Amino acid sequence: MNPLFAAMSVFVVALSVPVVKANEPAPALMPWPAEIKMQSGRFRLDSGLRLAVDGQVSDRMAGAATRFLRRLDERTGLFLAQNRISTADRDSTAQIRLACHRPGQLELFEDESYRLTITPAGVELSAVTDIGILRGLETLLQCLAADQDGYYLPALQIDDAPRFPWRGLMLDVCRHFMPMEVIKRNLDGMAMMKMNVFHWHLSEDQGFRIECKTFPKLHEMGSDGFYFTHAQVREVIAYAADRGIRVIPEFDMPGHATSWFVGYPELASAPGPYEIVRSWGIMDPVMNPIREETYEFLDRFLAEMTALFPDDYFHIGGDENNGKQWNANPEIQAFMQAHGIPDNHALQMHFNNRILELLTKYGKKMVGWDEILHPGMPRNIVIQSWRGKEALIQAARQGYQSILSNGYYIDLMQPTDFHYLNDPLPADTPLTADEAKRILGGEATSWAELVTPETVDSRIWPRTAAIAERLWSPATVQELDDLYRRLNRIDFLLETVGLTHRRNTELMLRRLADGGDIEPLRTLIDVVEPVKIYNRHRQGKTFTSYSPYTRAADAAHADQPVARNFRRLVQDFLQQRDRTQAEQIRLLLARWQANDAALQKTLHRSPISRDVAPLSKSLALIADHGLQAMDRLERGKHLTAKELDAARLDLQQAKQPAAECELMVVSAIEALVESAATKAKSR
Amino acid sequence: MNPLFAAMSVFVVALSVPVVKANEPAPALMPWPAEIKMQSGRFRLDSGLRLAVDGQVSDRMAGAATRFLRRLDERTGLFLAQNRISTADRDSTAQIRLACHRPGQLELFEDESYRLTITPAGVELSAVTDIGILRGLETLLQCLAADQDGYYLPALQIDDAPRFPWRGLMLDVCRHFMPMEVIKRNLDGMAMMKMNVFHWHLSEDQGFRIECKTFPKLHEMGSDGFYFTHAQVREVIAYAADRGIRVIPEFDMPGHATSWFVGYPELASAPGPYEIVRSWGIMDPVMNPIREETYEFLDRFLAEMTALFPDDYFHIGGDENNGKQWNANPEIQAFMQAHGIPDNHALQMHFNNRILELLTKYGKKMVGWDEILHPGMPRNIVIQSWRGKEALIQAARQGYQSILSNGYYIDLMQPTDFHYLNDPLPADTPLTADEAKRILGGEATSWAELVTPETVDSRIWPRTAAIAERLWSPATVQELDDLYRRLNRIDFLLETVGLTHRRNTELMLRRLADGGDIEPLRTLIDVVEPVKIYNRHRQGKTFTSYSPYTRAADAAHADQPVARNFRRLVQDFLQQRDRTQAEQIRLLLARWQANDAALQKTLHRSPISRDVAPLSKSLALIADHGLQAMDRLERGKHLTAKELDAARLDLQQAKQPAAECELMVVSAIEALVESAATKAKSR
Repeated sequence: MNPLFAAMSVFVVALSVPVVKANEPAPALMPWPAEIKMQSGRFRLDSGLRLAVDGQVSDRMAGAATRFLRRLDERTGLFLAQNRISTADRDSTAQIRLACHRPGQLELFEDESYRLTITPAGVELSAVTDIGILRGLETLLQCLAADQDGYYLPALQIDDAPRFPWRGLMLDVCRHFMPMEVIKRNLDGMAMMKMNVFHWHLSEDQGFRIECKTFPKLHEMGSDGFYFTHAQVREVIAYAADRGIRVIPEFDMPGHATSWFVGYPELASAPGPYEIVRSWGIMDPVMNPIREETYEFLDRFLAEMTALFPDDYFHIGGDENNGKQWNANPEIQAFMQAHGIPDNHALQMHFNNRILELLTKYGKKMVGWDEILHPGMPRNIVIQSWRGKEALIQAARQGYQSILSNGYYIDLMQPTDFHYLNDPLPADTPLTADEAKRILGGEATSWAELVTPETVDSRIWPRTAAIAERLWSPATVQELDDLYRRLNRIDFLLETVGLTHRRNTELMLRRLADGGDIEPLRTLIDVVEPVKIYNRHRQGKTFTSYSPYTRAADAAHADQPVARNFRRLVQDFLQQRDRTQAEQIRLLLARWQANDAALQKTLHRSPISRDVAPLSKSLALIADHGLQAMDRLERGKHLTAKELDAARLDLQQAKQPAAECELMVVSAIEALVESAATKAKSR
Repeated sequence: MNPLFAAMSVFVVALSVPVVKANEPAPALMPWPAEIKMQSGRFRLDSGLRLAVDGQVSDRMAGAATRFLRRLDERTGLFLAQNRISTADRDSTAQIRLACHRPGQLELFEDESYRLTITPAGVELSAVTDIGILRGLETLLQCLAADQDGYYLPALQIDDAPRFPWRGLMLDVCRHFMPMEVIKRNLDGMAMMKMNVFHWHLSEDQGFRIECKTFPKLHEMGSDGFYFTHAQVREVIAYAADRGIRVIPEFDMPGHATSWFVGYPELASAPGPYEIVRSWGIMDPVMNPIREETYEFLDRFLAEMTALFPDDYFHIGGDENNGKQWNANPEIQAFMQAHGIPDNHALQMHFNNRILELLTKYGKKMVGWDEILHPGMPRNIVIQSWRGKEALIQAARQGYQSILSNGYYIDLMQPTDFHYLNDPLPADTPLTADEAKRILGGEATSWAELVTPETVDSRIWPRTAAIAERLWSPATVQELDDLYRRLNRIDFLLETVGLTHRRNTELMLRRLADGGDIEPLRTLIDVVEPVKIYNRHRQGKTFTSYSPYTRAADAAHADQPVARNFRRLVQDFLQQRDRTQAEQIRLLLARWQANDAALQKTLHRSPISRDVAPLSKSLALIADHGLQAMDRLERGKHLTAKELDAARLDLQQAKQPAAECELMVVSAIEALVESAATKAKSR
């Protein structure tokens, strides 16, 4: 053991002497650490706080320590005397001491573990790598607490390490371009959640989003001018590296590639010409896998891009090729016959194998969506499973490493618990221990058909924090009430690192209200969610890349806390019949009942908000039925058959989406009504 | 006349046929146009709206038209069918038609005039240059209105042109670095307000914020890594050019230059070594004006920077050299004696003349703060007056062109009307007509000692909109009630182009409340302003570049509308004794009286917010006195001597700043109390 760590152990042992004071309550940490022991006592913070480093200190670690101090100061207003931490700040009397053995490498399976010890005398954070220190600093910031005497950190000991080594966020910057600040603030959010892979989806039918020096018509003709320069890509990679995050680019091929063909139609399997796609869906254009020129092009393309992105892994997409252009091209059909290629999947494997050769030449490992899984592929590729967990299991059994994205499609607007309980390796996995080791982790995927820079954070956060916890924390951490309690805190903290998921919603409500009072709109939106999965595309509007994403369905979030809490409240009340619960329910119902009248002024001044009128009216109607039901329940009476029929009719109506949204309190009010209906039912 | 414009005139003439319907009400435009005639009728907007261009159409104009459509669609949600406008979109049946004679040049005195005609049949916007079209498109967006039938544009005719050709915003990106997105969103705000000069303050004692390829130690050692690359500078210049905005860099010299000396101490007038300054104030370090090497360095430096920035003008700062290093340097003293240079001001003129030679060599015109004004300087320089209007007048009389910044220091947190009524050329100007022509306009200056990327927008907007109006609109436009009515609307619209002045405040309040309910804090902050001028530096805290700017004084804005409206309400009530006014006053007072108790929960959970406790308590106390006064006033009674003494004591106490803030409703409540005191006074 390194003397440094030995010293620290002594420190810890000294602490474990029995104490009479009660242990501190646990902070709302997320992701929850592998091991945590709360102890008694508080380390007080004041402006004299000093932080020092020890061991093999990297610039990354010093930079993270500096940012830690500034973030701490921003939240506490203490005017901390220390400015920037350098690798030479080694004062052993400092109250916060960080120590690591070596700089970490940004690669799969790197050690990210850390030990954090807080006592009334100070804080010791130790780790094998500086990346572990970064993870521990995020935990430490989440420990910040306050009492009448000011700020403090509660005494505790945490031993933490991730369950899975690959914990990613995929960002689609193609369907809607996402500028630099979107990338950076989301990297900050990822770092806070201890995520370590930024999967950058850089090319699509709708846009080629990176400068290509070898083939400049790619970005010049395929992006409308919205692309990342090499300098910007390097800036993102450095920013991510400073936060212990790997950057893996994805160039989707052979399908999802129309934007390539605008400048280079000869790459496609049909003559063209091609235009940037501005609608959504699966497109026919696909690369021509039988022309040697295709591979010569891709060879030179990959030479440039593999040099730009330092990570060992490189994503080639490979999803959703509908094969139509291949079927319609006689030369391709002849080639398949001549080479005994039975179907399009096999032809794509042929393509993939050629790409794999190129990537191998450039020292990269290939990642692709689950369509690239084919018995003929070598075992050194990584499968990203999106269509179902079957591919994940199948891949692991066949000897492939794989990561899970099915169940982590955050653009589908599903509730947090759905994603949270989606475990890449559930307790009942059919995999053997060796096979299970091939499951590397998972990635949340943020597709951008219906997402703009203004709304993207609210589509990613806070739900992705729950996915990050699933991938970091022990499998046994899965209590939903506790998740939501901590998520509520993390939702706030995510905002303090620059994410705009809450503040932009307020802007959007002001715009929807045309600058008027937003409260009635907010009251409605708080219990409304956009329709889920891809149902927004089936509500009458045809969305394109240039549609306005500024309407109620864009301002509404998934898993609205007000609605979720109400559902839970009703559930508890129906079991416990508690008076306080009843009072809370009645207050909310009364507010919703009155809100429709209040909202009329907004709808009057602002036509863009008028499509929510049916939702608002329904909410008022069912809230009224809910109040009636509460009245009966509390007086031990029942609804009349007529009242029940009227309520059921309105509840049925309230289940209909409007404005591409749905009311999220209908089932709960229905439960109240049905509970008050017993007598009527049994008449 | 161009046939295009002749056709348009016919169109206009046809409109001037007398109509019986009433004219539309005027929209809340800002800056107010030179001439506006409201007419009757409404042009209805729907998804079939088409826009076309005519004349000499630039890419800038097509791009602005595209952004116009998207912004219109974002606010209306109409799903406009048109996507991007190209220079070839010339459909003469389009309802919105834009036409200009020629592409504008980004230079002083370029034509920015436009004519906008809206009839029930469509919109014609014509201008000499595409820059005029850009200005007109901003006006057009501000015309958007709605009624029961949906969105429309009211019939009107506007003939508009700026009063002054130089309407700028200076942004200090040195004392706190302001990243790219801050620059871009403020350029969008400027464009909305028809401002045309972005003055980029790029070097300071506290930071050298631009990559220098010739002398890389400037940015490498002088910036902590926070600087703009050449590529980013070009991106800003292009972004600004697309919005009709010139970019003028400022490199402050010979003073305010410590960050230069970190890498190049030989430039200074004392040996060094130097460090980046992290405190605020006027520093001693100054360039050495007697060494030829200084000018050789600056020659090569300016060769690089003048090539990077295309504008004709180049700002060399020149302010606040305290001369101490010069006084202490025997060689400099000897040089002065040898060359008959009587004082430091003359020595700085010597320096300035050398720089002027270099700038002239590189084809640039020199701009500097008013210290550069010296009888010995040639007449082809521009003086930026900051210390007082005297310099402006003196400069104009001596034949210099000049711009006004004195009175436009928006970092001083003064009220909007103070800046608004500050006219570069007031009606009582002592200047002759010829001299007056040398007054080119003015610039709002955003210095960044106490400003971060999080707060900068709220320090600039919406007050800078009033300065923009002062510089664009006729001098006679100066009615304050009308200003504030329109400003309220513009404040909202500025948010829709990406500015964060309102939404970040909400984040800051959430952080101050540690994620808890923000309403009590908001109620207090709404009537609180940071202390003005530079008084925040005299309230006990020593601010540095790394202090936390996240406290109440940072969340509070200048010229808080709630407080301003209350003061006006009280003023009106004391004259008119209207019952509705009385009711409004009582409601507000009651809210403030109750707020202190509500705020305690926030203060309990969040120590960073506790320094507002005295303000909150004072507000509750004086609100109570105010209610008492209202009670007497309405019942025709008077306060007793004892009541009056108690009220006066608390009012006096409430005038004391706390938390670097001051209550902005004390004088109004005092007026109520004194008004209710008549009898007591005369006892």
